Amino acid sequence: MKAEILCVGTELLLGDIVNTNAAFIARELARLGIDVYNQSVVGDNPQRLKESLELALERNDMVIMTGGLGPTYDDLTKETVAELFGRKMVLHQPSMERIERFFQHYRRVMTDNNRKQAYMPEGATVFPNDNGTAPGLAVEQDGKIAILLPGPPREMTPMFLDAVVPYLEQFSGSTLYSTNVHLFGIGESQVETILKEMMVSSQNPTIAPYAKEGEVRLRVTASAKSGEEAKAMVEPAVEKIKEILGEYIYGIDVGDLQTALVKALQSKNKKVAFAESCTGGYLAKRLTEVPGSSSVFDCGVCSYANEIKERILHVSHQTLADFGAVSEQTAKEMARGVRELSGADIGVSTTGIAGPGGGSEEKPVGLVYVGIATEDSCEAYELRLSRGYQDEREYIRYLAGSHAFHLCLKTLERL
Amino acid sequence: MKAEILCVGTELLLGDIVNTNAAFIARELARLGIDVYNQSVVGDNPQRLKESLELALERNDMVIMTGGLGPTYDDLTKETVAELFGRKMVLHQPSMERIERFFQHYRRVMTDNNRKQAYMPEGATVFPNDNGTAPGLAVEQDGKIAILLPGPPREMTPMFLDAVVPYLEQFSGSTLYSTNVHLFGIGESQVETILKEMMVSSQNPTIAPYAKEGEVRLRVTASAKSGEEAKAMVEPAVEKIKEILGEYIYGIDVGDLQTALVKALQSKNKKVAFAESCTGGYLAKRLTEVPGSSSVFDCGVCSYANEIKERILHVSHQTLADFGAVSEQTAKEMARGVRELSGADIGVSTTGIAGPGGGSEEKPVGLVYVGIATEDSCEAYELRLSRGYQDEREYIRYLAGSHAFHLCLKTLERL
Repeated sequence: MKAEILCVGTELLLGDIVNTNAAFIARELARLGIDVYNQSVVGDNPQRLKESLELALERNDMVIMTGGLGPTYDDLTKETVAELFGRKMVLHQPSMERIERFFQHYRRVMTDNNRKQAYMPEGATVFPNDNGTAPGLAVEQDGKIAILLPGPPREMTPMFLDAVVPYLEQFSGSTLYSTNVHLFGIGESQVETILKEMMVSSQNPTIAPYAKEGEVRLRVTASAKSGEEAKAMVEPAVEKIKEILGEYIYGIDVGDLQTALVKALQSKNKKVAFAESCTGGYLAKRLTEVPGSSSVFDCGVCSYANEIKERILHVSHQTLADFGAVSEQTAKEMARGVRELSGADIGVSTTGIAGPGGGSEEKPVGLVYVGIATEDSCEAYELRLSRGYQDEREYIRYLAGSHAFHLCLKTLERL
Repeated sequence: MKAEILCVGTELLLGDIVNTNAAFIARELARLGIDVYNQSVVGDNPQRLKESLELALERNDMVIMTGGLGPTYDDLTKETVAELFGRKMVLHQPSMERIERFFQHYRRVMTDNNRKQAYMPEGATVFPNDNGTAPGLAVEQDGKIAILLPGPPREMTPMFLDAVVPYLEQFSGSTLYSTNVHLFGIGESQVETILKEMMVSSQNPTIAPYAKEGEVRLRVTASAKSGEEAKAMVEPAVEKIKEILGEYIYGIDVGDLQTALVKALQSKNKKVAFAESCTGGYLAKRLTEVPGSSSVFDCGVCSYANEIKERILHVSHQTLADFGAVSEQTAKEMARGVRELSGADIGVSTTGIAGPGGGSEEKPVGLVYVGIATEDSCEAYELRLSRGYQDEREYIRYLAGSHAFHLCLKTLERL
């Protein structure tokens, strides 16, 4: 089955928002084994919307559209699909009641044009919206399918997972099962070189690498008649990857480094504290993104100034004078200092040059030290994070955090 | 002039990366007065790439492509354009030398397929790449233009700004000048209602609102024969907006709230310190995104646990027992505490319920207190940030930070 993703919205054409919907839907369709060869964006213009929709249905079996389901006069996706498929617009009473309840619940005033959102092309399958007023829908005709979803990601994403995935599974004869192996400290090309033979020879399950911000994720996906059967096909492949790349694997189906770290801390009943210089709160921010992180994290100090490093973290004046703030010695004393200040089991520190200014021949932009202090050890690790590109501040800060989390995970293994 | 943005890459079709290039180019083209009615994505497949390119050039004057300029066999964008325009591929010696220098500089090994990146369709305008090996290019023929840019945003973005914008200005008879007015504390629909008459009646300059994450930006753009002339047309409109919406304006052409705050602190020679509970380092992270923030920010404390609030920030045990961590009283004591701890001029605190768990009837998810302490004042502000949607943790934490920055800006005005 072949699908096109067609996103509707003038705000996309003007670049006012980034099209995260297309990426989300593409990823989900790949998981379902539905091929996507084209993605398109068109504005809230009836003529061009119609042309794009016709083209999408001409070259594909299915079009998945987002946007243009709102209450205003320029929201025309439903009407355009109804016209193309020769269907009348009819009231969908459950949607009307749901919209009325939504307005009551949030004590907002319901206007006449909100009622328009309860009208559907006759015979459509309706997907309820738990996070907004616009229901989604699917219309089938002559072997072609149009699926229409609301534009805001917070409405579209849960609707897709809860209602569209089950709807789409009927078109796929088989069930998919995927496991993600998360790696850190190895590049995508290196992973490909090492696993090349296995990746090429294994067709079911497939093994696909995805690189993102210093990490590599290997997705192992099997297709079978049942979920259990597919799972049983995935497991031996994952075991083999563990044998080959075990030292780089930080988790299986674990999401990201910060989530892996929170889980590892929870399972060992340990707490972590951060002393951040160059990352300026980024470690704390990323860790506290994880719901439930409060059980493993009490305290972070962002010590941007040397005086704060001395006074709050008790880094010695002599260390700062002799080696500078960006040094192995300072990193160690910061980690030790925040561990003692907070009473945590592990103290983690960062100090470095994030740029764009502040670099020198001796201490260039991208030089970062991570300190890790435990009850009986204190280590510092030197990182060189610049790739020689312009404007790397965000990248260096992010990657310093990833390394700090990874080093913390490694330290936890032996506690 | 009408353009289509055509992004090439299987990783986009699979949803492995989000298409930020399309949004960036769309925004820049809007600024240049070039209309975009379609955006498309196609994979690294020669036949479908050719079809998409033909369609784009049939319905537009210009196509701007990203991706497919790499060294490997499936990078085919240049070759496809050359074939369509009937051009030979010829060696571009300056590009070859630049690529050789790039490899020498980063001490990487240059392979034969890197040489392919120095070959161009005959007669192309070449855009040098300062951040990678793939040059960009433009080919013109029979009133149609194809512009080809590398896929990685860190290569594409500077190339677009440095080389493509000057190239495109030759096709525009006029020069544009834009000013951005940044507002906080007012919704987009309210701005539209208040400014409706002015927005509808003013055609040059145009006034366009853009809403993003709790903020509204009004872009005032004039088109004239010279930059000065356009600027002179923009200024009176900005003055009128200031008269009408002055209380909500936090800056003109200032980028974002954190940059505005760093600039305001610098100009008043003041320092800020953060005590963060529910935002967990997000304030510090956002402020230290701004290069040069170290001149106004020495210290942040992320006090996730009550014990840390007491011991490091000196919030009284009685306050926490009587009112709880999420309270006006605790927010004030945290702000006062971090101000004293750090020696900063302004102490800013956050404490609240970011969710998804932890909410109650009395203190629901989204309730956040921001404390602001100065030498002679200490105030707390209650915020209700939930919109009733699922999975709002990131949104609540981000918006709490924006409010904290805005309250800090307002406090600075009277210091």
